[in-house]
Amino acid sequence: MEKFKRNERVAGLIKILSDNPNHLFSLNYFSELFSAAKSTISEDIASARKIVEQISLGQIETISGATGGVKYRPYISKTDAIRFLDELCEKLRDPKRIIPGNYIYASDIIYDPNVSSKVGEIFATYFMNSGAEYVVTIETKGITLAHMTARALNIPLVIIRRENRVTEGSTVSVNYLSGSTKRIQTMFISKRAIPEGKKVLIIDDFMKAGGTAKGIIGLMKEIKVDVVGIGFLMKTVEPKEKLISNYISLLEVDEVEEQKGTINIYKDMMFSL
Amino acid sequence: MEKFKRNERVAGLIKILSDNPNHLFSLNYFSELFSAAKSTISEDIASARKIVEQISLGQIETISGATGGVKYRPYISKTDAIRFLDELCEKLRDPKRIIPGNYIYASDIIYDPNVSSKVGEIFATYFMNSGAEYVVTIETKGITLAHMTARALNIPLVIIRRENRVTEGSTVSVNYLSGSTKRIQTMFISKRAIPEGKKVLIIDDFMKAGGTAKGIIGLMKEIKVDVVGIGFLMKTVEPKEKLISNYISLLEVDEVEEQKGTINIYKDMMFSL
Repeated sequence: MEKFKRNERVAGLIKILSDNPNHLFSLNYFSELFSAAKSTISEDIASARKIVEQISLGQIETISGATGGVKYRPYISKTDAIRFLDELCEKLRDPKRIIPGNYIYASDIIYDPNVSSKVGEIFATYFMNSGAEYVVTIETKGITLAHMTARALNIPLVIIRRENRVTEGSTVSVNYLSGSTKRIQTMFISKRAIPEGKKVLIIDDFMKAGGTAKGIIGLMKEIKVDVVGIGFLMKTVEPKEKLISNYISLLEVDEVEEQKGTINIYKDMMFSL
Repeated sequence: MEKFKRNERVAGLIKILSDNPNHLFSLNYFSELFSAAKSTISEDIASARKIVEQISLGQIETISGATGGVKYRPYISKTDAIRFLDELCEKLRDPKRIIPGNYIYASDIIYDPNVSSKVGEIFATYFMNSGAEYVVTIETKGITLAHMTARALNIPLVIIRRENRVTEGSTVSVNYLSGSTKRIQTMFISKRAIPEGKKVLIIDDFMKAGGTAKGIIGLMKEIKVDVVGIGFLMKTVEPKEKLISNYISLLEVDEVEEQKGTINIYKDMMFSL
């Protein structure tokens, strides 16, 4: 006896798949959940795939074979990314956000789950085929963005600490020169966090000169893991010469003119039609 | 002309609603998205509600009137919460997690998006009717849990800093005595973070004596906001007398016996059948 109707199974399938991005479910799993034959589930998956693609909300992928199954890949189209980043720039340009010293108050936006989810999906779309096995960030402001990127890619998140904490166990550290403050600082990673030889994606909220990012790259080298991608939400135009290369940044901050009350922030060139 | 079939609309509706927990969508929104009459959308919502409830994946709620619409509420049943917390305890009991000094290495679990999502949904289920308008945490280890709680409740996340940062703008600080380390520390919150009179929910990963939590409560009093709930993932059994009251903790850590290699950790009494 089939407990659920076709449209109920398809809807349930979409709910479960999209709640668990990039998580591979076997056909057996859905077959048992819905008390339906595997052939029926296969047809349900075909319907689900069509719907998700029609409303541009990602991709449903089937992998055949004994270890196969079905999974949902978040995917943001260029048009949707552009619309979202334009809105984000609009919010960030609010002159009330200017902090003395030509900084922008952006914590409320970066921590907003609606923003972090979308940013995570944009990074996941861009780095989909990077082979990344871990997302790495450094405390504190990049954590929500890195967390949602890790969620969308279904890989673990690792947070580098700025102080040595007993709860991290034995750690590896590097000293680095913060490009902006010109001060020597130290960052720490738990020795248990990432096994040697793994591939990692570095995600952070902001880059100015790139000193911190260079520090992270050095720390990754120290623990013998490969950096396969680097993504920032924002970077500054100045200094033009960054300490790192091969990164992407979704937004670019040109100038904060405290006197005139204007913030010049734009989306990156790659998001133009 | 109707572009989508009933089952396609229902599935699309469930996808969009569950991607945006506790976000109110007007019937017009779906009516335009699917080029369908509002009466048709109403019927679709009824189908969607039935499906989501049947597979125990939350609740779809309709609010009538001019400012009404439809929203999805994440909801974890007691049975599902128990199953999840039992699995979590099982993972945390692994003797390899013992860190010298009787600590448990738990960062990999706390930062795991699959874990943080579920913990966030459990807190959201528990604090659904608390009236919370903001989720507050202190850097660093509670951030992923607080972030997913904020996502499930669709309210902003605020992170208290342990150091004064220029990017936070003008801040308010309190000194507090960490119950475990007996050291005076300072915590900072941006003056822009939460307007006076708002209701907040405090979420953190771990409580021992409660000194940090007491500090957060003091800071909330300082900025004139009301604490309407406090939730921890774990608390220790000792010391029995905590510095705060009116909190919930999902798990309880009794003793880490470094010599014997055992970690005694259990789910809280409220999660027993």
